[in-house]
Amino acid sequence: MKELIFVGLGLNDEKGISLAGLEEIKTANHIFIELYTSLLPDFSLKNLENLSGKSIKTLSRHDLEEENGKLVLEAAEKGKAAFLVPGDPFIATTHVTLRIEAAKRKIPTRVVHGASIISAIIGLSGLHNYKFGKTVTIPFRENFSETPYNVIAQNRQLGLHTLCLLDLKEDEKRYLTINEALMMLQEVEDKKEQKVASNDAFAVGLARAGGTHPTLKAGFVGELLSFDFGAPPMTLIFPGQLHFMEAEALIALAGAPEKLRRMTT
Amino acid sequence: MKELIFVGLGLNDEKGISLAGLEEIKTANHIFIELYTSLLPDFSLKNLENLSGKSIKTLSRHDLEEENGKLVLEAAEKGKAAFLVPGDPFIATTHVTLRIEAAKRKIPTRVVHGASIISAIIGLSGLHNYKFGKTVTIPFRENFSETPYNVIAQNRQLGLHTLCLLDLKEDEKRYLTINEALMMLQEVEDKKEQKVASNDAFAVGLARAGGTHPTLKAGFVGELLSFDFGAPPMTLIFPGQLHFMEAEALIALAGAPEKLRRMTT
Repeated sequence: MKELIFVGLGLNDEKGISLAGLEEIKTANHIFIELYTSLLPDFSLKNLENLSGKSIKTLSRHDLEEENGKLVLEAAEKGKAAFLVPGDPFIATTHVTLRIEAAKRKIPTRVVHGASIISAIIGLSGLHNYKFGKTVTIPFRENFSETPYNVIAQNRQLGLHTLCLLDLKEDEKRYLTINEALMMLQEVEDKKEQKVASNDAFAVGLARAGGTHPTLKAGFVGELLSFDFGAPPMTLIFPGQLHFMEAEALIALAGAPEKLRRMTT
Repeated sequence: MKELIFVGLGLNDEKGISLAGLEEIKTANHIFIELYTSLLPDFSLKNLENLSGKSIKTLSRHDLEEENGKLVLEAAEKGKAAFLVPGDPFIATTHVTLRIEAAKRKIPTRVVHGASIISAIIGLSGLHNYKFGKTVTIPFRENFSETPYNVIAQNRQLGLHTLCLLDLKEDEKRYLTINEALMMLQEVEDKKEQKVASNDAFAVGLARAGGTHPTLKAGFVGELLSFDFGAPPMTLIFPGQLHFMEAEALIALAGAPEKLRRMTT
């Protein structure tokens, strides 16, 4: 039966996949994986092949974005194909295209979800999900613009938190750090009236969300600039108005200063 | 060793848990679960007990919110305790309190993430994650206010999508439907100048995200009002400015009308 199942690998390693996801692999005729849209720090393809008893073919950015996932679609037209993706499958918007193409070819598709960096970061921070505004990605210096700063500033004016994903090029082993991101934001800030990333602004840094030992640190930007977050991937949050329970969480779980209590609503 | 592990159950049934999460249950001394903050339509506690070979104690809202999770904390002070939660553990903000209390008692905590309804809905819709503004919950009629309408309207003015979670009381088996939510929004709209939920506004409804057979339908509100979404849980998205790739996704995956292409940027 022709079918294409998108399976989320969740976070960190080969055990981030759900039991339902593993079952789909075991019963699929063809299994593909991509590992370039996100970083799974402790992932081993060999271990996943052992767990599932199946051989899994790794696809490159070229296979998916230039060849439009032709290999996956052709396999799905002949039998059950599973396509494994880090995190939750369509948070990397690039794979939506593959699903649309499958729909056009009348190939039935299903999704087995995985844990996403998006909900992991929000949850670990102790900040409330419904108080986040628009999310932004902070790119590497060669692609940097004022946009991320403007998104943070706009959310802040509305009292909302901003989740900043830091860019990564997994196929080149390049990961933007919190330190670099803060420096670039401060360079933009020099030209701005509204100050959201200066040394006395408050922010939350998070490294290796979803890993066994994530590092979470809330503090003033001046302090975060010299804080050692360890290995990537990293994320930044610029809080808007803090609820007192959010401040309590940042004090208890992220080493925020006690005086944060006086900055809440 | 004293320790408290929060384990996400992911979506739909007992196979939504990750392999890592299942291992934590197998090695824990005391295992607790709550099933009232979200709906896992096909979940069987008995199956999870069989899969893990462990007995699991169900906690009520009273145990967690009035007794402050005393049972969990006391177990964690004596050995390894696992606390199982639908979805990704801290998207239901109520459990952040338990983690803070554990930290105050010097009980080490860890999180094994699960798939969350938040990323599942965004991914299934084919809409781009970074174009969502503030999320809002639409409450039952007895708690309804103008707030959800105002959030949708504010996001819309910024060109952003709004994810509307529909309220549920799992312990009372009450679930707000898309139809009821739209009706209440239209009642508020009668008093407003900006029109975001009228019959000719565009919206996306989603039922049973994370389940084996989710129902996704994009269309005009007038059409969604009479569409049969089947069983709960349900969600609504009010899109802001659509990128042409988002429109393509809604046409191919959610039965949106072809003329949506002319409403993109």
